[in-house]
Amino acid sequence: MFQNFEVLSSPDQAAGRVARLREGFADLGVDAVAVPRSDEYLGEYVPACGERLAWLTGYTGSAGLVLVLKDKAHIFVDGRYTNQVRAQTDPAVFDYQNSVTTPLAAFLQSSDLTGLRLGIDPWTWPSSEVTRLETVLESLGGQLVFLERNPVDRIWDEQPQPPLGTVSLQTLELAGTLARDKLAMIARTVSDTGAEAVILADPSSVAWVFNIRGEDLPSTPHPLSRAIIPANGRPQLFIDKRKTGVEAEAYLTQLADLQPPSSFDDALDRLGKTGVTIMVDPAVAPHAVSMLIGQSGGTVLNAPDPARLPRACKNAAEIAGSASVHRQDGAAMVRFLSWLDDQPAGSVDEITAATRLEEFRRQTGEAMQMPLKALSFDSISGSGPNAAIIHYRVNTDTNRRIEPGEMLLIDSGGQYVAGTTDITRTIAVGDVPVEQKRFFTLVLKGMIAISVLRFPEATRGLDIDAFARIALWKSGADFAHGTGHGVGSYLSVHEGPQTISRRGAQELLPGMILSNEPGYYRDGAFGIRIENLITVHEPRPIDGGDTPMLGFETLTLCPIDKRLILKELLDPAELEWLNAYHSRVREELSPLLTGDAALKWLEAATRPL
Amino acid sequence: MFQNFEVLSSPDQAAGRVARLREGFADLGVDAVAVPRSDEYLGEYVPACGERLAWLTGYTGSAGLVLVLKDKAHIFVDGRYTNQVRAQTDPAVFDYQNSVTTPLAAFLQSSDLTGLRLGIDPWTWPSSEVTRLETVLESLGGQLVFLERNPVDRIWDEQPQPPLGTVSLQTLELAGTLARDKLAMIARTVSDTGAEAVILADPSSVAWVFNIRGEDLPSTPHPLSRAIIPANGRPQLFIDKRKTGVEAEAYLTQLADLQPPSSFDDALDRLGKTGVTIMVDPAVAPHAVSMLIGQSGGTVLNAPDPARLPRACKNAAEIAGSASVHRQDGAAMVRFLSWLDDQPAGSVDEITAATRLEEFRRQTGEAMQMPLKALSFDSISGSGPNAAIIHYRVNTDTNRRIEPGEMLLIDSGGQYVAGTTDITRTIAVGDVPVEQKRFFTLVLKGMIAISVLRFPEATRGLDIDAFARIALWKSGADFAHGTGHGVGSYLSVHEGPQTISRRGAQELLPGMILSNEPGYYRDGAFGIRIENLITVHEPRPIDGGDTPMLGFETLTLCPIDKRLILKELLDPAELEWLNAYHSRVREELSPLLTGDAALKWLEAATRPL
Repeated sequence: MFQNFEVLSSPDQAAGRVARLREGFADLGVDAVAVPRSDEYLGEYVPACGERLAWLTGYTGSAGLVLVLKDKAHIFVDGRYTNQVRAQTDPAVFDYQNSVTTPLAAFLQSSDLTGLRLGIDPWTWPSSEVTRLETVLESLGGQLVFLERNPVDRIWDEQPQPPLGTVSLQTLELAGTLARDKLAMIARTVSDTGAEAVILADPSSVAWVFNIRGEDLPSTPHPLSRAIIPANGRPQLFIDKRKTGVEAEAYLTQLADLQPPSSFDDALDRLGKTGVTIMVDPAVAPHAVSMLIGQSGGTVLNAPDPARLPRACKNAAEIAGSASVHRQDGAAMVRFLSWLDDQPAGSVDEITAATRLEEFRRQTGEAMQMPLKALSFDSISGSGPNAAIIHYRVNTDTNRRIEPGEMLLIDSGGQYVAGTTDITRTIAVGDVPVEQKRFFTLVLKGMIAISVLRFPEATRGLDIDAFARIALWKSGADFAHGTGHGVGSYLSVHEGPQTISRRGAQELLPGMILSNEPGYYRDGAFGIRIENLITVHEPRPIDGGDTPMLGFETLTLCPIDKRLILKELLDPAELEWLNAYHSRVREELSPLLTGDAALKWLEAATRPL
Repeated sequence: MFQNFEVLSSPDQAAGRVARLREGFADLGVDAVAVPRSDEYLGEYVPACGERLAWLTGYTGSAGLVLVLKDKAHIFVDGRYTNQVRAQTDPAVFDYQNSVTTPLAAFLQSSDLTGLRLGIDPWTWPSSEVTRLETVLESLGGQLVFLERNPVDRIWDEQPQPPLGTVSLQTLELAGTLARDKLAMIARTVSDTGAEAVILADPSSVAWVFNIRGEDLPSTPHPLSRAIIPANGRPQLFIDKRKTGVEAEAYLTQLADLQPPSSFDDALDRLGKTGVTIMVDPAVAPHAVSMLIGQSGGTVLNAPDPARLPRACKNAAEIAGSASVHRQDGAAMVRFLSWLDDQPAGSVDEITAATRLEEFRRQTGEAMQMPLKALSFDSISGSGPNAAIIHYRVNTDTNRRIEPGEMLLIDSGGQYVAGTTDITRTIAVGDVPVEQKRFFTLVLKGMIAISVLRFPEATRGLDIDAFARIALWKSGADFAHGTGHGVGSYLSVHEGPQTISRRGAQELLPGMILSNEPGYYRDGAFGIRIENLITVHEPRPIDGGDTPMLGFETLTLCPIDKRLILKELLDPAELEWLNAYHSRVREELSPLLTGDAALKWLEAATRPL
């Protein structure tokens, strides 16, 4: 199993650990220390050795930080984790702050902490945030102190070793573009920007450029690594050789000098000493990178990671790979949904649902010779009121049976070498009240509105986000998250810069893969989300028009629960989309389900409404 | 008549005037001079004495600038004026640049003008643009030279005197809030921002705060004036006393110290010398304001004009006033449209249409005892291919008859003491081809989509702009302008910060008045625009929902030409909106048209489709 549902942390250990941390303050020359959830790679997931915030506090959420002062400690989390942080940590040790309404910089500003010397590990903070903290501390007559060694590592006696997940190669068939050509393209961008080199600090950019993948993290298959790519000359790739087998090492050596991660500091120092200009993305690079370059005499040019946008625009091979894994993933989903419908109402709990779905993904992957490499994230399996918790993660404490008349919201995805999936379906168990069906239909209307959209070049995600909401808005409702995020190709399931949301300033470009996942959540009662992945197609002419229009093609293949649809709320075009989608789902998935009991279920589930 | 259609400028005078300007370069110590269309008040309209760009070059468009170098001169205009600038100016004297794709700063950057000393009058440029120019010139080893006197004024022998339009008072019934209370509110904002005073550099802000109006400009009824409002103490109002009668002077003297405009420099100097912090909006204040404050030792705090947002959110009295002038303006429009339908097809030309409409507005205003004070802008009256020119302004050279089978696009508005109108109708003359009707119907669908929209708090203009476009997008078409702009209350017809457009970052707030004017333009063939003014209503609960939603109420009352609608393209909700709108138009306008031949026309025009 890739997922577990144990309650792993306990609030008991924090008091002693925080006390030990404070004992070091005098040595470090600080009055306080801030420890974020991020590690040195600043990614969404951290390996066991990077779980410093969880080890220190007990809090295991995917975002947050702790500010440990001499006499107090404050944990900052966003609205998703308000309850979790209280359950996992000791209120005698911690005060709680909302990281959205009162981020650390604002908290410091409004406090009376004049003259504060705040210690941080500059490897675990991006430059963009460090700049903010420095400004505030200076205005308070204080100072940000960059610590030589991570303050938690100093006291964490049994800290695990960094992971050594095996590095694999993405074949040309899967990647679509040779690493050589990607490296040349990055070098050109560096040169065009007027710099001599770029630091690729985001492991997903390194993985994409070199066409490699890894197993260092639970859900994101990039190897923890960094690279320096010069405008002219040989790239350097910083990766532990114990991760690369003979084949991968031979391959990578053709493209770059392989260096141990521990030599990255020296390499920055050497590069800086040549006095050149180096591109660094302040949002994805640890602040230590810019510090080291600056200290040795180099010039930092803040610019977006040059791999970010090309990585987001998938080529034909990546789109074909994604289409193929979506067929397979859809077959697994159909097996799961068919199984679920077969169980007596009220007999299945949330953990069983998530577990069975993972099994179906694994079995289908084995049968198709495209194994499930990992889940793209911990499945969200919430029933009844639990489904209203947008980022719910079931554990043995919260697990509950799906009672007749309730809905199960299950949001999950798989990592396969040909692509990454992310799908949400909301399923009726027994006879669901009509009010919940009404909201299900309104959410579906939003999902369809995005699916059928046509739009001109230069349209941004924020220009179209409201189409997913308008049916809800008309009914006096909304949902408190974006409509969609970018998705990688056998990389992170949350990939930038593309999003469909209020903040989606990136133009939508052909080849981008995004989720399309409107929802509706009624606190303490029920939750609905319907999610397909979609990809942006090239501008295509429209009869009688003068401007070719982009649009979306749907990748995800899985029935939408018709028992939850109030047909009379759909207009003819929406109904037509639904029936055409179901007919395509049936056509594409049936061959994969020959001889399976789920085939009959699929036929019923995709019959026209 | 408020408008004329003469071709006023000639390309012949420019050569001599530009030569005289260059003769002064040595005296001024510059290698070049840039003259924008803006005057010292940086508004959309300039009085005759401020028409420096037109006097110097012959170009009379509403936006643009000229860069006069020693041996060359470049005029910068946006796409709207590409043809006009060529018709009005001498190509032997000027080169032409696109001000959007190559603004002045970018032009200088890409030129080889190293070491350029560029002279500008810092009263006619906002700080935000000056900063940009300074950066570029410094990077080229050049310098921006702030001239003591406007370089055109030095050579303009018969420059007109500044206007002395009479100042009138907005009664409490019209303004809804006492000037005293507005001044107190502004003073509070200044104090909350941590400043000691604010410079109100936008005459519309001064007019709004003091509840005064003026006649200095053709279409915007604000008096040219400025004010300094301290956090504590007495405001200063800089206005020529020849504009204020006894009543207005007595009224204003209660609120502020009245000073001549010529003493504004000294006042800034005195204020700066006290060493205080002063709020200035760098987007609306001349750069000279910040310069004078800085030179005398004051501190400039860049912050948005504090009157801007409150002015945009109309109170109940202003909304009631707007509703009332829209009834009257609608009656005038109906008289015009009824008259137009009565003329033999092919007998009316564009100038006649605009002229007759103005007469109907004037007559209706007199009859209703709410006279037409001005047109809110020069009417756009374009038929056939001329309608495809988005900012077309007919003159005796371009005037043409509306032939049978063509459409007339007429975009116009009136200034009345109770409010400002802005309406576009596109009218069939004879039997229009079905292809044009199809696009008319698609534009109408966009206009209706905005009209019926409901949306939650914090929704911005840019979140909803695409709803006006989606019907066109689906048909492979779009329009190259925003959906709507803010409109003042007997103030500027183009008022910020509210817009419905790609750049509409301002949240939509109750009381804001905006235009709703999607269009479609086919070059050399036809043009369509349908425009109503709308106002944002308070959040209202919706049955079965959990979130009260804002929405729009339509202010404009005038039939939409049913002869151009393909009914089969409207969905039932759209048809319902149209019929309900027409029924409301009939109900509200009929009482104003008793005994008029237009009443019968109105009844037919508003009959359900």
